[in-house]
Amino acid sequence: MQNITNYQNAFDAYLSTFTTTKEPLALYSPINYILGLGGKRLRPVLTLMTAEIFNCDPQKALDAALSIEVFHNFSLVHDDIMDDAPLRRGKKTVHEKWDINTGILSGDAMLIMAYKLFENYQSHTFQALAKLFSKTALEVCEGQQYDIDFETRDDVTISDYLKMIEYKTAVLVGAAMQMGAIVAESSIENQNRIYEFGKNLGIAFQLQDDYLDVFGDPKTFGKQVGGDIIENKKTYLYLKALEFSKAEDRLELQHLFSLSPPDQTNKIETAKQIFMASGSADATKQEIEKYTNKAFSILELLDISEDNKDLLKEFGEQLMNREV
Amino acid sequence: MQNITNYQNAFDAYLSTFTTTKEPLALYSPINYILGLGGKRLRPVLTLMTAEIFNCDPQKALDAALSIEVFHNFSLVHDDIMDDAPLRRGKKTVHEKWDINTGILSGDAMLIMAYKLFENYQSHTFQALAKLFSKTALEVCEGQQYDIDFETRDDVTISDYLKMIEYKTAVLVGAAMQMGAIVAESSIENQNRIYEFGKNLGIAFQLQDDYLDVFGDPKTFGKQVGGDIIENKKTYLYLKALEFSKAEDRLELQHLFSLSPPDQTNKIETAKQIFMASGSADATKQEIEKYTNKAFSILELLDISEDNKDLLKEFGEQLMNREV
Repeated sequence: MQNITNYQNAFDAYLSTFTTTKEPLALYSPINYILGLGGKRLRPVLTLMTAEIFNCDPQKALDAALSIEVFHNFSLVHDDIMDDAPLRRGKKTVHEKWDINTGILSGDAMLIMAYKLFENYQSHTFQALAKLFSKTALEVCEGQQYDIDFETRDDVTISDYLKMIEYKTAVLVGAAMQMGAIVAESSIENQNRIYEFGKNLGIAFQLQDDYLDVFGDPKTFGKQVGGDIIENKKTYLYLKALEFSKAEDRLELQHLFSLSPPDQTNKIETAKQIFMASGSADATKQEIEKYTNKAFSILELLDISEDNKDLLKEFGEQLMNREV
Repeated sequence: MQNITNYQNAFDAYLSTFTTTKEPLALYSPINYILGLGGKRLRPVLTLMTAEIFNCDPQKALDAALSIEVFHNFSLVHDDIMDDAPLRRGKKTVHEKWDINTGILSGDAMLIMAYKLFENYQSHTFQALAKLFSKTALEVCEGQQYDIDFETRDDVTISDYLKMIEYKTAVLVGAAMQMGAIVAESSIENQNRIYEFGKNLGIAFQLQDDYLDVFGDPKTFGKQVGGDIIENKKTYLYLKALEFSKAEDRLELQHLFSLSPPDQTNKIETAKQIFMASGSADATKQEIEKYTNKAFSILELLDISEDNKDLLKEFGEQLMNREV
């Protein structure tokens, strides 16, 4: 395969066989709905790609890839309830289209279905996949809790924030890749390294997401530019700006992030100016670079061909340039 | 051990080592809270007892027993949100003490923790436990969905109802016992039979719960007598009364179960009279007897000593006489 579109197509074909008309419909229809909303399928693509890079037929990794995607969508369904989000990928969220109880129960079923997808593997592979899955899934819950906690805390440090995005977002990218390595029965060293590669790339990706949320091009960035500022999110940009600013600017920024004016245009513009003037914007770019390079340096340690290293590096570069 | 109180004590001692002060506290405190509310620990006791009956040190089954209890409490936390229930075991429910988002996220973490509790077992045991767990957990979700669906359906049949209580309640009793047999590495035949024993006893238990909800002694029945009538629940008693009644009584009963008067005393009394006069009360008692006897007849097929059969039968009888 060795081409992202091919992996996406193989995954989507497999996903379509998973869509069921099982009873009770009220439980399973929302699951088909959310899985059918599309998306770039980045995580399952990484599972398939990693399996192939470790010399395994990617078809064998389809169940693990689907498990990752089902889990990711479970977390979206429950997070959307918690965030009271009306839209997901431009369509109604599950709890908006149905109701909160449906979102809770269908989400629960998805979490269980994600484990069930490991059942076709031999018992040692099953156990390795399920253990990694449980560890990762619990970290994702912890990350979500930290994110909620941060809303009402005013003592969040940069290191707290990095831990939160690591847990909430990055570990699942690492796990998606490690699962490909587990299915391929690659060495523990390779497994751990590909996990670290994915995790560091995941942190870089999330930091870049924070950056683009403020400085991105409204035409190409998928979400509303300025959204994090509107929601007073304590992102890396904000925390670093507090650190770098003199007392006066720091107070202004903290004040700004306590407001929710009806028209947020000025607030967004002021925050943007402080992020740039304080050096926070540059520091964030450097941090993205740092985690990207950390990921790439781990690649060097992998026991795979240079061609395959280039492939992973190319994928990482495409991801950081948002071409995928 | 071979004594219910001993199993309860062993389980509670193990549970207390599970209570953690892990970060983030906002995620883990509600888990400690709900697990600490007590209860009779029937399901984990059954896991320990079954392991011992199949000649295994019950200590080895503690992780499986705890997994069953953690899962059961996960389902209580999420069901209480869906039912908007203020109290659980006489104390505030998790979403009342904290909030709905906490109930959702802490519940999710508990479902994952239930799987993690299998990790100390060897891979073939791990896989057997996790597969049974996933199958059962998904059925419990389906049972909960059927229960929700039935609230707005007026074509629920007796067989629909029996399937609902089998999924929502009984399969977990069967699985709790089968897990004891899996840890004891008993034969597949024994595993399947002890599952069927538990499942049938679970159905009998739930039918008896429905019966006691109407005809129980307010002094000894743990819940409000008449609660199902107040909530217009389509229980076995109600469905059988519809089946047995002449047109006039049937219409009155259907009308009654569409009302929510401020004072429910008369409604409860009228429903009770129809349940008795129609023969539904007697038919329910017979159905309880039928499932209890079905469970006991399966016992005979088990490849265990007569003493152990007597022990299981005694437990079943105590359960059906509500002494445990």
